[in-house]
Amino acid sequence: MTVGSTPGELATYLETHKAQVDAALERAVANLIDDLSAEVREATSHGVTTGGKRLRPVLCVSAYEACGGRIAPATYDLAASLELIHAYSLMHDDLPCMDDADLRRGRPTTHRDLGEDATMRAGAALIPAAALQALGACRALGCDDGRAVAVTRALLEAAGAGGMVGGQWLDLLGEGQALDADELDELHRRKTGALLEASLLMGGLAAGAPSRVQACLREYGAAIGLAFQIADDILDATQSAETLGKNPSDAALGKSTYVALYGLEEARERAEMEVDRALEALDRAELRAPMLRALARYVIDRKK
Amino acid sequence: MTVGSTPGELATYLETHKAQVDAALERAVANLIDDLSAEVREATSHGVTTGGKRLRPVLCVSAYEACGGRIAPATYDLAASLELIHAYSLMHDDLPCMDDADLRRGRPTTHRDLGEDATMRAGAALIPAAALQALGACRALGCDDGRAVAVTRALLEAAGAGGMVGGQWLDLLGEGQALDADELDELHRRKTGALLEASLLMGGLAAGAPSRVQACLREYGAAIGLAFQIADDILDATQSAETLGKNPSDAALGKSTYVALYGLEEARERAEMEVDRALEALDRAELRAPMLRALARYVIDRKK
Repeated sequence: MTVGSTPGELATYLETHKAQVDAALERAVANLIDDLSAEVREATSHGVTTGGKRLRPVLCVSAYEACGGRIAPATYDLAASLELIHAYSLMHDDLPCMDDADLRRGRPTTHRDLGEDATMRAGAALIPAAALQALGACRALGCDDGRAVAVTRALLEAAGAGGMVGGQWLDLLGEGQALDADELDELHRRKTGALLEASLLMGGLAAGAPSRVQACLREYGAAIGLAFQIADDILDATQSAETLGKNPSDAALGKSTYVALYGLEEARERAEMEVDRALEALDRAELRAPMLRALARYVIDRKK
Repeated sequence: MTVGSTPGELATYLETHKAQVDAALERAVANLIDDLSAEVREATSHGVTTGGKRLRPVLCVSAYEACGGRIAPATYDLAASLELIHAYSLMHDDLPCMDDADLRRGRPTTHRDLGEDATMRAGAALIPAAALQALGACRALGCDDGRAVAVTRALLEAAGAGGMVGGQWLDLLGEGQALDADELDELHRRKTGALLEASLLMGGLAAGAPSRVQACLREYGAAIGLAFQIADDILDATQSAETLGKNPSDAALGKSTYVALYGLEEARERAEMEVDRALEALDRAELRAPMLRALARYVIDRKK
């Protein structure tokens, strides 16, 4: 088994890559709206450039590197395409007709600052922008057209009705109902898991990973996706909205949570099991990937 | 100059192609949501399969044929990708925080029947679905990956901030203001024109049109896009909401219109000029395209 990194190494790694991802996101937003007005720039930037852990892009870059890719600025551009999709989903999730949230990452949500109409449009604009961003980054990384299509398909499938939006639907339909374990897993496999899985897969595909490794990366992604969601539910149950920088909690919205389903103790055990499954997938892939190992633990050890 | 078709030939042509496009849209929706629940199927279908002229897909198929492509079922699948984007834009446009419309194509809007949350999600799900649909159709038509990327880029660019969404922004910002002629042209070039232009370009690209012909198809698309919008404003000013099957009119929403800017008579002349420009572009392309000629006239002669 490959040896993991120390907590200090992980913190430095996260910080370094996050800074590069943030720079790529600034480029992406500037590119998206360069010939439109200041109002448009403001609304689009609001949802994209307001912090966050940048977990999906960092996973993408890590997978790219683990599969033998040489990191270049375009690697971060590719990774940023995932964050554009993630940012759109949060902007739309927070709208009054959805979760009606006032806070996100400790700041007013986009619609509170700039209105519902601007938030809807800015969110929707990010979806084609993300796909174009992925295509452009693949070209810059020297991927041939076939590989660029595969990478972009992975992003689009994760973002669509079979993935994230499908999970959001299940989330809507499940409000006020007690979902069973399979239903809750299915919801989060789509809602959170699909894009995390795509993060790994896109990095691997862009670096030319063979299909055996692609399958392991997907399993790693699916496992940390579930672990991530269980950890989210634990944080929601044990931390204040102020610490988390967002409100309201899923429990307050009448949504099923892993903590409600299993209790805190068993939820923690299940998160650990998913992390183990992720690490086993890396072992099977025979990748030298200390940072992917450290990231799997980070997903459940994080404090917000 | 190529001779055009008779009105009867055009009507038959439109009817035949519309039926094929509708069948392709049914396939697309079934494919999109095959493993999700009945509620999701209902909301997604609502916005997509409720009629409409299917102008964009018909233009795409016509351009494909005019550029030497042999029409196959996958040609309609490719064309349907444009209608998925168009349908999403109408679903979102009609929402309470946008135009707050009750009627579309003579039926209650999706959010009136199924709620705002379902409409937001269904609309957003259609964007990645459209891009995946275009990629899949290109493969089925035997396009190589490079051509598939070019076709899909054309769709994504037309749908995004540089195209349709950008125009919707300008539309929002222009409410309650009197736009001048250049501003109104720019708004509609993006809001309506970009996707019409992409309809032609995607058909041409998929059929392997050389870049000289691509440029002519784009100009044809841009010209009929403006003609289409001027005709829309004329219809809004001269027909009842009942006849048009939608409400409220742009004028009632405090938006600038070509009729308000130029008056009815000059607006009609300008629409004619744009049709002439479209026909000249076809002449320059030296395409045998009687249906594209007839469609250019249809855009301003239609009754709703």
